[in-house]
Amino acid sequence: MRHKARGSVREGSTRVLLCCGVLTMIDSAPLRVGIAGLGTVGASVIRLLERQAQALKGRAGRPIVVAGVCAREKGKDRGVMLDSLAWFDDPVELAKSGEIDLFVELIGGDEGPARAAVETALSHSKSVVTANKALLAKHGLALARLAEAHHVALAFEASVAGGIPIVKTLREGLAGNQIERVYGILNGTCNYILSNMETARRPFADCLAEAQKLGYAEADPTFDIGGFDTAHKLAILASLAFGTQVDPAAISIEGIEQITLADLEAADELGYRIKLLGVAQRTASGVEQRVHPTMVAKSSAIAQVMGVVNAVTIDADAVHELTLVGPGAGGGATASAVVADIADIAKGIRSAPFGLPSDMLTPAPRAPMQMHEGGYYIRLTVADRPGVMAAIATQMGKREISLESIVQRSRPGKKAAGVATVILLTYATTEHTVREALAAIQADGIVSETPQVIRIERE
Amino acid sequence: MRHKARGSVREGSTRVLLCCGVLTMIDSAPLRVGIAGLGTVGASVIRLLERQAQALKGRAGRPIVVAGVCAREKGKDRGVMLDSLAWFDDPVELAKSGEIDLFVELIGGDEGPARAAVETALSHSKSVVTANKALLAKHGLALARLAEAHHVALAFEASVAGGIPIVKTLREGLAGNQIERVYGILNGTCNYILSNMETARRPFADCLAEAQKLGYAEADPTFDIGGFDTAHKLAILASLAFGTQVDPAAISIEGIEQITLADLEAADELGYRIKLLGVAQRTASGVEQRVHPTMVAKSSAIAQVMGVVNAVTIDADAVHELTLVGPGAGGGATASAVVADIADIAKGIRSAPFGLPSDMLTPAPRAPMQMHEGGYYIRLTVADRPGVMAAIATQMGKREISLESIVQRSRPGKKAAGVATVILLTYATTEHTVREALAAIQADGIVSETPQVIRIERE
Repeated sequence: MRHKARGSVREGSTRVLLCCGVLTMIDSAPLRVGIAGLGTVGASVIRLLERQAQALKGRAGRPIVVAGVCAREKGKDRGVMLDSLAWFDDPVELAKSGEIDLFVELIGGDEGPARAAVETALSHSKSVVTANKALLAKHGLALARLAEAHHVALAFEASVAGGIPIVKTLREGLAGNQIERVYGILNGTCNYILSNMETARRPFADCLAEAQKLGYAEADPTFDIGGFDTAHKLAILASLAFGTQVDPAAISIEGIEQITLADLEAADELGYRIKLLGVAQRTASGVEQRVHPTMVAKSSAIAQVMGVVNAVTIDADAVHELTLVGPGAGGGATASAVVADIADIAKGIRSAPFGLPSDMLTPAPRAPMQMHEGGYYIRLTVADRPGVMAAIATQMGKREISLESIVQRSRPGKKAAGVATVILLTYATTEHTVREALAAIQADGIVSETPQVIRIERE
Repeated sequence: MRHKARGSVREGSTRVLLCCGVLTMIDSAPLRVGIAGLGTVGASVIRLLERQAQALKGRAGRPIVVAGVCAREKGKDRGVMLDSLAWFDDPVELAKSGEIDLFVELIGGDEGPARAAVETALSHSKSVVTANKALLAKHGLALARLAEAHHVALAFEASVAGGIPIVKTLREGLAGNQIERVYGILNGTCNYILSNMETARRPFADCLAEAQKLGYAEADPTFDIGGFDTAHKLAILASLAFGTQVDPAAISIEGIEQITLADLEAADELGYRIKLLGVAQRTASGVEQRVHPTMVAKSSAIAQVMGVVNAVTIDADAVHELTLVGPGAGGGATASAVVADIADIAKGIRSAPFGLPSDMLTPAPRAPMQMHEGGYYIRLTVADRPGVMAAIATQMGKREISLESIVQRSRPGKKAAGVATVILLTYATTEHTVREALAAIQADGIVSETPQVIRIERE
């Protein structure tokens, strides 16, 4: 039955709109928000909601008020007034409280209180806004199903690339496109370290230590520099871009620990920079999802992104190429994303969490890395004697790997040791072929260190 | 009255959702779209809606179908099948037809059939999607009022920066921010010409002619190179960013016609590029809106944008700096934006056209350019004789204009003519002070050509 009637009636604080065949009853009563987790981001969210209250009321058509909060320590000074807000010691109690309409989860962690509270809120038909990438990467599909079953929103703009509205862009802004590839710098710590290595010509360990001193890296940096944080975010982007079920296990992950100054200098000479990218790409054999250090042309938009900044590029059939650059972390930027989600929900916007309804999301078939096609940078430490180059070129040629460039150099210190560096850039080939050629070269006994292999990503 | 009840009932093809205090009746009947204007963009919209039909149905929760079309010539081959669609010769008839729920205006022009049809559609309570920046710049406020009065959407993502989702980002993605400045490269023609002048070291006239040959510039290029197209787009962005009533008359406009190779070369040496920017900025005296050639640091994100590409940077209190880069024109990119708007409307998303309801939009007080504060690049052609530099420096010093650099050079050709070039870069000062100093220098009789003045925009 098509609704032809149009008009509006008022009933208490509620306005019913009937137009374009869509009936919307917009509640002008305040949207009552509960916030669990009052670290930097939580405190920033409270400040933004206060500071922008008037504008948000105008945009959403109703006031947005913080009605309850929850954190571990009640007495701590967070620079915001909490006296008038209901205090909860247990996030699950806040999540199911009749005092709130929407639950904001800023606790963190993929299990424990964060998961319990989010599930409780959704089960009690309360929309959820979260910045928790680990939770979404692990339980995103189940949570989306729960949100849809209860007809509430599950929004997570802040979980990927901080202040960059990449979730909204993929979910809504590019709705008319078939997306071919989405890739980006999703971890500010790694980008800070790589940028710093390149510009200051300092080794990895020094730049990591400096990042730790500045608070950009944790005492145990494995989660960032090992690529795992990037992988969580990539899993979410891939689901939004390709309509697949979020699945971090489908991602091939390499960190930046093995990147040396020699690689950055060689990249620079060859017209490239090295970035840790998360890449999700539609291929003939499925969706390829990978996180690894990557050579990108200096002229590309993504190569310009230095320091703790994040960036995401999308290749799609209609729009071609779109790049978004902005802060990937920090209280203000993350709170900006959280508040945008809250405002959308206040306005009545309900998108399926991953764009498509969860029963339309397909399993993400893991395209094996061995089948990855692309160019490669290879750095070999070889015996400095005649015939070595010929041996390398022969092994490459046998497998029909075309070389874009091949450079041999003997560094002063290395010359004495009787070793030289050979750097190869290949045209597009497969991972399998490259690995096979390198194994053959190693078997020839001319290589004295494990070869360095960095994939090239073209615009 | 707060609605506590939650649940859903089905009635015919309509589902009523009641949750979070918001009741939404989602119609699963097809959204019937009428498209007026079947040029490159119109044909692309039809193709995208067909190609993405399944995904769009999933995302929107209902099918989106093209029900009627309108163009000047019925028989023309547009590469799309129109046989099954109702044909209208008059866009106003299509706009009010009972066969459509949503009207897409791709006719162009700020009066005539485009305006009449859009007004008719809104008055008949049909949502409108348009790519028409001229119409919105001129009549945006009145059309927004009309849309709100009829509780329908007026969406115009495609009107600014083509495929870049900048309208959605300002209207929804940054809802929690107070925006301080929005600026960008909004005209691909000008950016193509300036990029080409710089990289090929060719004069303006040559590069304009080439742009015309490639179809990037019109036979009469005034609208693009004079900055008027940029101004239309800036007027829309300023309204979205600052909650002001769209008002192109508040914009100070300069085009790129006076930019010479000498300026581009000097910019290059000084570490800058020259871009035609549209800038809207919150200042103590109101919202400053200006379009002019601008010096931007080579290291800035916006300076990297070469060719026909567009880019927009937003400075805001919470997110700090966000930059979006993508195609500003072309059938596919523009259609991508049109289809995203259609999908939002199909889903039931209703934002006020300019973010805030139109009765909350304030008049845009025109911050006079004389009060503009910033750095300046000044190129003077002066008599090549002793004392000239001192005279210039004295006039600047008198007005407390601090100079970042001052360079005099005598070019081979110019030397013979007894003239030299002096290039000044000032630290932040006011437009008024600079103009006064230049008038005094000209009065000193040492300048032989009109001084070139280009404003510097800092990140």
